[in-house]
Amino acid sequence: GGIRNIILNNPKKRNALSLATLKSLRDDILHDADSTDLRVIIISAEGPVFSSGHDLKELSSEQDTKHHAEVFETCAEVMTLLQKLPVPVIAQVNGLATAAGCQLVASCDIAVASEKSRFATPGVNIGLFCSTPAVAVGRSLPRKVALEMLFTGEPISAQEALLHGLLSRVVPEDKLEEETMKIARKICETSRSVVALGKATFYKQMAQDLEAAYRMTSQVMVDNLALKDGQEGIEAFIQKRKPVWSHTTDRAYK
Amino acid sequence: GGIRNIILNNPKKRNALSLATLKSLRDDILHDADSTDLRVIIISAEGPVFSSGHDLKELSSEQDTKHHAEVFETCAEVMTLLQKLPVPVIAQVNGLATAAGCQLVASCDIAVASEKSRFATPGVNIGLFCSTPAVAVGRSLPRKVALEMLFTGEPISAQEALLHGLLSRVVPEDKLEEETMKIARKICETSRSVVALGKATFYKQMAQDLEAAYRMTSQVMVDNLALKDGQEGIEAFIQKRKPVWSHTTDRAYK
Amino acid sequence: GGIRNIILNNPKKRNALSLATLKSLRDDILHDADSTDLRVIIISAEGPVFSSGHDLKELSSEQDTKHHAEVFETCAEVMTLLQKLPVPVIAQVNGLATAAGCQLVASCDIAVASEKSRFATPGVNIGLFCSTPAVAVGRSLPRKVALEMLFTGEPISAQEALLHGLLSRVVPEDKLEEETMKIARKICETSRSVVALGKATFYKQMAQDLEAAYRMTSQVMVDNLALKDGQEGIEAFIQKRKPVWSHTTDRAYK
Repeated sequence: GGIRNIILNNPKKRNALSLATLKSLRDDILHDADSTDLRVIIISAEGPVFSSGHDLKELSSEQDTKHHAEVFETCAEVMTLLQKLPVPVIAQVNGLATAAGCQLVASCDIAVASEKSRFATPGVNIGLFCSTPAVAVGRSLPRKVALEMLFTGEPISAQEALLHGLLSRVVPEDKLEEETMKIARKICETSRSVVALGKATFYKQMAQDLEAAYRMTSQVMVDNLALKDGQEGIEAFIQKRKPVWSHTTDRAYK
Repeated sequence: GGIRNIILNNPKKRNALSLATLKSLRDDILHDADSTDLRVIIISAEGPVFSSGHDLKELSSEQDTKHHAEVFETCAEVMTLLQKLPVPVIAQVNGLATAAGCQLVASCDIAVASEKSRFATPGVNIGLFCSTPAVAVGRSLPRKVALEMLFTGEPISAQEALLHGLLSRVVPEDKLEEETMKIARKICETSRSVVALGKATFYKQMAQDLEAAYRMTSQVMVDNLALKDGQEGIEAFIQKRKPVWSHTTDRAYK
Repeated sequence: GGIRNIILNNPKKRNALSLATLKSLRDDILHDADSTDLRVIIISAEGPVFSSGHDLKELSSEQDTKHHAEVFETCAEVMTLLQKLPVPVIAQVNGLATAAGCQLVASCDIAVASEKSRFATPGVNIGLFCSTPAVAVGRSLPRKVALEMLFTGEPISAQEALLHGLLSRVVPEDKLEEETMKIARKICETSRSVVALGKATFYKQMAQDLEAAYRMTSQVMVDNLALKDGQEGIEAFIQKRKPVWSHTTDRAYK
């Protein structure tokens, strides 16, 4: 319970992120996002390609500029949503992730990949520089590595992706699901409301300067302690017992 | 001479950062900070735990919100102070550093650790998300690694911490003190005033955009050259002799 | 064709970046920068030292403050220019790069180095803290690694530089030119105008917050598609043929 699996399941089309797929991804992500039954989302894919990015037919001159804009705006909306969700989102990658597919991996909170996985931003080869993927990729990898990927389109290995910060973990292919589930189950053992507060606060403070970040988060710690689940956690620890979470934002005291 | 050792010495309490300990740490850091006799600070700890973070008894409902706020604000003050000091601060870690203990390591200028050291932000497990540690941890490690640590509470190894930027150096346990002292002694060979100017400038420019950073630092280089120690260093280099530092901010010329 | 080699060729002076050298570097970089014949720039060096940074004789008290300021401002101008150029700039490093020489490597878009190369910011040893190099180094390496380099002046190896993000690739010395040329030739196969748009957009969005970055880049993707080379690339891909680039900013449609 608590784990939602979202599976890209169009391997024949290399799990392209067509406009319809992006909208369906958005719906899957947002569906009952505020339910206390949802604790973590895992995004995985069927077939040897995690996702090849946009559906190029939707970007040809047969479609007008307005349609092109809708594709990129919907994509950006989905990528931004992942960080706004109250639950952690894990990318579970087993294969090649390119362009907006690589952007999807870079946009999740946590990313686990099998050793054979590879990551690329090859848009430049078809005359469409990966400028939107670069927003997420440039914030995950060192600038030099990101630019070599963007200028040449050449893939990096899972090990390189881990080394450079795109992934948090690389595992053998036959352990991929197990290791991802281990992280997901660990998250399910914690309080939903505490995780939601922590995730929202993390992204907020990262955009602030150091002093503003400490002012804001110091107050968040005080508020976190005032939560029923905040006091329950500390009491359980002191009493050496397992905590019983309410998963709500109810306060223990004013 | 010149090296101040600050040792967390309450191993029975896992070197918890109680309010009293934080205040004493602040005093130790600030004591005679402007004396030219002080050149570098090393923060180390007794026992197998570098520091386990806040004292949870101080965060229970037996203490009121005002007290909780004082704990987090004093902690943030200490962490911010480390970067404002005119001398470099080195964390010398031999063991487990968790929560605010991990934040302390992340907040030093330089961090050296033994191979057996480990780092975690496990607050989520006791219902108190490590939101203040995340300020320092999120600025030291790639986002995905930081979030996996914050969401699961699981520790990373010293080697992973080095790989991801939390540490500058990992050494065998029996070389830890020697390697840390090597760095400290190297700093003692330089001019205090030049290091103070360089450290303050570093943190200032990192918060600016590229062009503002270059405008500001170009002027700092000119000012650095005008220091007595700036001219002494260059003259000594050209004359192939050891420089004799004044360690003051006296200027060689207007 | 398309590849411009700029070679630092004063090995007797350890390829010092004297004011004259900086000005000549600026001229070499800017020369015909808007010509469609120029596709990529490679900066390399003769001798065992890539560059030792500023010419210290120009920074002595024999020169006045105004001259010192000109040196640092010209240097900052050259470093900033590298990112403003419409073509990628690759540093090809085979040896020691120190101070402003290390800054030059850090300021290129891509950096490839031989295994024996080393990188340092040793200004502190001669009383002149590497505050301008720190602008580029602090934006390429994790803070703790950058500060240990800046405070001690000790060099890091090529492998460490790769691990920490200063380089995008490390190769055996006898493969250095071949591997660098492979990247350069790959860039020459792409459309100049698409690369120029992509590079300018990359640096612009990296200075913005996430939502502003996505708004701006989503529009850039639409504009990129409207380029003749944008449509040619996608058509060629769908028709499974090699694209024929115009390299111009001509639009396929309004």
